[in-house]
Amino acid sequence: MASTEIELRGHIIDSFILPRVWGAIEEAGAHFHVREMRIGQSETETSYARIEVSAESQQMLDDLIPELQRLGADLAEVQNARTALVTQPGVLPDDFYSTSNLPTEVRVEWLPVANIEMDVAIVIDRDAKSAHTTPMHEAQVGDAVVVGYEGVRVEAQERPRQREAFGFMQSPVSSERAKALAIREVAAAMIAARRRGGKILWVLGPAIVHTAARGSVAELIRRGYVQVIFGGNAIVAHDVEAAMFGTSLGVDLKTGEPVEHGHRNHLRAINKVRSLGSLEAAHAAGLLGDGIVAASQEHGVDLVLAGSIRDDGPMPSVITDSVAAQGRMREAARGVEVAIMAASMLHAIATGNLLPASVRTVVVDINPAVVTKLADRGSAQVMGLVTDVELFLSALVDELPVS
Amino acid sequence: MASTEIELRGHIIDSFILPRVWGAIEEAGAHFHVREMRIGQSETETSYARIEVSAESQQMLDDLIPELQRLGADLAEVQNARTALVTQPGVLPDDFYSTSNLPTEVRVEWLPVANIEMDVAIVIDRDAKSAHTTPMHEAQVGDAVVVGYEGVRVEAQERPRQREAFGFMQSPVSSERAKALAIREVAAAMIAARRRGGKILWVLGPAIVHTAARGSVAELIRRGYVQVIFGGNAIVAHDVEAAMFGTSLGVDLKTGEPVEHGHRNHLRAINKVRSLGSLEAAHAAGLLGDGIVAASQEHGVDLVLAGSIRDDGPMPSVITDSVAAQGRMREAARGVEVAIMAASMLHAIATGNLLPASVRTVVVDINPAVVTKLADRGSAQVMGLVTDVELFLSALVDELPVS
Amino acid sequence: MASTEIELRGHIIDSFILPRVWGAIEEAGAHFHVREMRIGQSETETSYARIEVSAESQQMLDDLIPELQRLGADLAEVQNARTALVTQPGVLPDDFYSTSNLPTEVRVEWLPVANIEMDVAIVIDRDAKSAHTTPMHEAQVGDAVVVGYEGVRVEAQERPRQREAFGFMQSPVSSERAKALAIREVAAAMIAARRRGGKILWVLGPAIVHTAARGSVAELIRRGYVQVIFGGNAIVAHDVEAAMFGTSLGVDLKTGEPVEHGHRNHLRAINKVRSLGSLEAAHAAGLLGDGIVAASQEHGVDLVLAGSIRDDGPMPSVITDSVAAQGRMREAARGVEVAIMAASMLHAIATGNLLPASVRTVVVDINPAVVTKLADRGSAQVMGLVTDVELFLSALVDELPVS
Amino acid sequence: MASTEIELRGHIIDSFILPRVWGAIEEAGAHFHVREMRIGQSETETSYARIEVSAESQQMLDDLIPELQRLGADLAEVQNARTALVTQPGVLPDDFYSTSNLPTEVRVEWLPVANIEMDVAIVIDRDAKSAHTTPMHEAQVGDAVVVGYEGVRVEAQERPRQREAFGFMQSPVSSERAKALAIREVAAAMIAARRRGGKILWVLGPAIVHTAARGSVAELIRRGYVQVIFGGNAIVAHDVEAAMFGTSLGVDLKTGEPVEHGHRNHLRAINKVRSLGSLEAAHAAGLLGDGIVAASQEHGVDLVLAGSIRDDGPMPSVITDSVAAQGRMREAARGVEVAIMAASMLHAIATGNLLPASVRTVVVDINPAVVTKLADRGSAQVMGLVTDVELFLSALVDELPVS
Repeated sequence: MASTEIELRGHIIDSFILPRVWGAIEEAGAHFHVREMRIGQSETETSYARIEVSAESQQMLDDLIPELQRLGADLAEVQNARTALVTQPGVLPDDFYSTSNLPTEVRVEWLPVANIEMDVAIVIDRDAKSAHTTPMHEAQVGDAVVVGYEGVRVEAQERPRQREAFGFMQSPVSSERAKALAIREVAAAMIAARRRGGKILWVLGPAIVHTAARGSVAELIRRGYVQVIFGGNAIVAHDVEAAMFGTSLGVDLKTGEPVEHGHRNHLRAINKVRSLGSLEAAHAAGLLGDGIVAASQEHGVDLVLAGSIRDDGPMPSVITDSVAAQGRMREAARGVEVAIMAASMLHAIATGNLLPASVRTVVVDINPAVVTKLADRGSAQVMGLVTDVELFLSALVDELPVS
Repeated sequence: MASTEIELRGHIIDSFILPRVWGAIEEAGAHFHVREMRIGQSETETSYARIEVSAESQQMLDDLIPELQRLGADLAEVQNARTALVTQPGVLPDDFYSTSNLPTEVRVEWLPVANIEMDVAIVIDRDAKSAHTTPMHEAQVGDAVVVGYEGVRVEAQERPRQREAFGFMQSPVSSERAKALAIREVAAAMIAARRRGGKILWVLGPAIVHTAARGSVAELIRRGYVQVIFGGNAIVAHDVEAAMFGTSLGVDLKTGEPVEHGHRNHLRAINKVRSLGSLEAAHAAGLLGDGIVAASQEHGVDLVLAGSIRDDGPMPSVITDSVAAQGRMREAARGVEVAIMAASMLHAIATGNLLPASVRTVVVDINPAVVTKLADRGSAQVMGLVTDVELFLSALVDELPVS
Repeated sequence: MASTEIELRGHIIDSFILPRVWGAIEEAGAHFHVREMRIGQSETETSYARIEVSAESQQMLDDLIPELQRLGADLAEVQNARTALVTQPGVLPDDFYSTSNLPTEVRVEWLPVANIEMDVAIVIDRDAKSAHTTPMHEAQVGDAVVVGYEGVRVEAQERPRQREAFGFMQSPVSSERAKALAIREVAAAMIAARRRGGKILWVLGPAIVHTAARGSVAELIRRGYVQVIFGGNAIVAHDVEAAMFGTSLGVDLKTGEPVEHGHRNHLRAINKVRSLGSLEAAHAAGLLGDGIVAASQEHGVDLVLAGSIRDDGPMPSVITDSVAAQGRMREAARGVEVAIMAASMLHAIATGNLLPASVRTVVVDINPAVVTKLADRGSAQVMGLVTDVELFLSALVDELPVS
Repeated sequence: MASTEIELRGHIIDSFILPRVWGAIEEAGAHFHVREMRIGQSETETSYARIEVSAESQQMLDDLIPELQRLGADLAEVQNARTALVTQPGVLPDDFYSTSNLPTEVRVEWLPVANIEMDVAIVIDRDAKSAHTTPMHEAQVGDAVVVGYEGVRVEAQERPRQREAFGFMQSPVSSERAKALAIREVAAAMIAARRRGGKILWVLGPAIVHTAARGSVAELIRRGYVQVIFGGNAIVAHDVEAAMFGTSLGVDLKTGEPVEHGHRNHLRAINKVRSLGSLEAAHAAGLLGDGIVAASQEHGVDLVLAGSIRDDGPMPSVITDSVAAQGRMREAARGVEVAIMAASMLHAIATGNLLPASVRTVVVDINPAVVTKLADRGSAQVMGLVTDVELFLSALVDELPVS
């Protein structure tokens, strides 16, 4: 039998921390014994519990404890974090600690872990007294990577007392709820973020252009509510196609009708920009009209385009190497306070994996499966909206003054 | 071998009539031989074909010919319709002619069939020189029901030359197309119908109330764009719940939050109206606010409520017998020129079965499966819109002046 | 300020009872004060809490307490239930207690409430010392209906210690999980129910016949795993169509191809059975082959068919009045231990509303939205399976011996 | 006014070629005049039409003609193809001819275009008397690229006389049709392809592993029905995770339950393979069990793994550059006769773009939207199956002998 003691503090009952910790212990086939407990007597008082966790084997315990840490448990005995050195580039020590996207500290003295994101490793720089995350493929020989779980502290998110739109995700705002309210709350969060100087990130899928909603996005850029855009080859190809030919994937945006020669238009648009060498040159040549790319260039939006295997062309500026693209997205995500993922699946999932839990994230899609899939990926501060992206964007513009 | 001759007239090539007729013959394992053909030389000229159809058995031919009639073929030999008398109430003669929803004539002398709808029988009144449809369960002993297919003429719809929103259904307007255009076209069709004095029918599902869109519907009633509403127990129960308690299925319509005692509210609303005896009495008692039922009563809208087995209560006015409800819906559908089915499945399918093909029908739902299912049910004049019903209604109100 | 004391007993932490009760109080804007608490020290010990709940108004408290009862709270002060007499047929007293589908007792002395189902009222017969539920429309003048919440005790379901397939519904078994395991667990539950003499209820949609899975259902009937079937007009019409013509909605079940004359076949089948007068007569005439209806008649399955407004015909045996149909379904549901809802929406929702929480319910559909919708409707003992019903039934038959 | 003459030959009416050509002319706002027409008199005779097409401008005509070619029209006047030289690497001449995926010839003398796929350019090598396709980014300075549409001949696919499963895609085999039939037809096509020595390509999504269906895929490899696999990082990561830990994305494949430490397992699996340097080394070390990767190595399957921005790790062998990955997929697709896309979206769309129309393609997914999206992408020889992939694979294995 192996055992250790954990502690829980705060609103551990109405935040579901205590029942989840107990449940996790039972499901693992381990056992607990309450050593000490003080329960808050009313909704304003916090509680405290010290619990012994025992398991049949050390391995079982070693697997269980990091799970409990994510749920809000701390080890009762304060220890320093253990580290092991990277010996092969891009390969972590076997027993590396795999992060959550919650605020995390590691102990030499307690150090906050910089740039937290999900499923990466923690490197401690003992000289600089700092710690930061590193994705597996960036691990360098000599990095001191945290192993085991001792000396790691995770700040689980408590359920906020005050209900708010960006509460703990329970289930998405379905198409059967009133969306007008939700749109107003998204607008309020965007205004607040801009007042604090926080960045707003948009992840955009190509349906934005097909639905003639590119005007709404361009307007949001001009009003100051877009600092970073993540997208792929398609959104840019169709934005340029719309500017050059008035179509998107060959559909006339004024009449909604397919035009005969239209399936070629996005290829022509890509080919033209390739011949000029860059999207900047295309703008200088007057080809981009007043679309998303044009507005991005005029207002200094950081437009990060990540390629995929289904791309035609691709457009200049599209990063074809997926590891390099992830790297650029990581950089651009620093300082983001609000993220809005609209009509995007691949890029939205990739982005969700990179963002800390504290970023207020809105997922908008007409397909409930997409919203659920994205909202489920670990971030607690997600609002899912099952609605029509075109009409959503148009209604959102109406709620936002020039910032 | 059995054989007969058919004729095709009009824009039989670009309306796909000729290829469909040939395809149907081949798929049935029958054969054709072109006896005469004149092809229009340009897009303004019509064509003509006389074709011999032969099959291995009379039975195969008898099964095939009605199919070809629906596709636009006429029998070359003009005969009178055959009839057989109904001998059991609610039971048709074995070989009864089953209608399409296309304009149809039967010959004694050529008589138009009144009240055409899909999958019903045709009764000829030789004395009155008239013909009308009858559903199976209304067949009365002595009715002269058309049997076989001789003397029946169906007017297939040609693909309109001029493209328009209400063209032949090919595929629904997907969520990836610009909906603003489609909404404008729906509004134009509604305005035109009202100018001609035509009725507009709405089939409404309960999500209309859950999404706080009941205000939009009530406004459409006040502006004169609603003459008939088909719905069920739920839409009315939640409309009254919203008026009495400010909730819909227990969700507060102002905050979007569930309220604790809310799951009881629709039961309370139903119980209250039952105690008063009628929706009219509830309106007189001031309980209906400015919702859909209130506006319907004030503006003489024909509100037909058909019950189902999942209903609580039900509300007074709900017709619990499904055959009786179908009957009332049939009556109320007379004179309808535009039908809009919003966020409804059961009632929308039932309505689609009752409407002639000439009614311009709009199916709006956020679920593409619902739109496809409804749009597929035989009516050619359907526009399917995959979008958010709440935002659709709000945008539609903006396009419509007081009529 | 109004206040009262509640008690919680059992595994109130790991069953989420305590946190949910606290959460419900806070969300209602009410307050709590812990008066007494004993926490189980390990996973085998139960806990106890006595808590004062206070609210700004008696109305707020009256709305809140029934919610807490559903979550597992009892009033600390033992009182008798209050009743009021029904004064209008089909109308309940204003303040009637609306049930959950959980085991419930009311106090004169503590009486179990017979035939519990969701959203109905409780009638106490003081002479017979018994209590039973009544749907609103069956309330009779003179019935003593429970009002308020005093003297009502609800047995909330604790999360089972031992994980099992029919655990508390968290989320449906998605199409991305291994279904072979789940199918084996369903089979085990069916075998166990039959050993105990419990009934198995199937709710069947027409897609069962379209997918050629009627043979699987008939085989399950012959093996003894079907005691009750709920369905509509369509399932029976297509079952007879398949027997008479080898098609389902006109699609040849051997080739999968539409047959030309096929859209008429279900009308012909209905008409034929109507001419014979009953499904029994149709079986006697040899028209039903070895399908679902034939097997049902041969093995004494209780086949309850509830009509809807989209029905053609309808078939004899279809109950067209929705209130009468509900009544028959209520009766037939007595004694059911396992319920399987396959490819059905309307009938499945109606059935879900009628079943007590203790019935082990399986919802099988290829559309995740249907599974979620049904699994969400309050029953805790639901397993949702997103899979192909045809292949599911075929795999299930392989797991089940003759019972 | 500009005008030219086109010719149509073959079963141009029942293959819908003539009506589609007329329709396309009308929709473009152009006009036609029939110069000569001979109509086949019965289902075995072909027809012929020579038609003058006129438009208001040369530009309109130039846009329209390639559209008509795709539909099966040839220019009446036989000319040689025009070419222009590539002057910038990766950039095509402005007026390049953009291909369909149909068999295509270009005229110097008539040359078949090798390696046809959609939306690429045609390069003529006059010395070698050959023509082949080139994607935009591979265009090299000096390539003679076909411009305009003269001298291009497209062989439109006629609707096959004999109905078969792999007929012209009209709509997917829905979940409401019998799938057992369709599965047998897929098996027959696979057996026939292997007899001819044709390759079978599988495009696999990670749900294959989550659903414990990897055993079925490995069995298909062992029986000889898999020559090429396209997939991403996830399918391989979870296949190795399943071999090393018995889980897939942390879900125990034996019990279907999440395991506590499971979310780390796929990271551990990737890290382990990275430390060994390759999937081959991992197999040598005995880490791959009897999964998909192991069977692929043992039976010489060409496993092409294309990365994406959402990947962890990635696994060795994953091609992170999307343009390089497309190139490898193009190579591996040569000689493929049957392609099966199972539970994959991104990789399936990319593959669909690369395959000629003659490859018999099966799209299997439980989500009808995925099936429709893939089936719509231009390939005529597609069978879409809306069903459960796990149960589909298991049923397919039962139909296939060792080849």
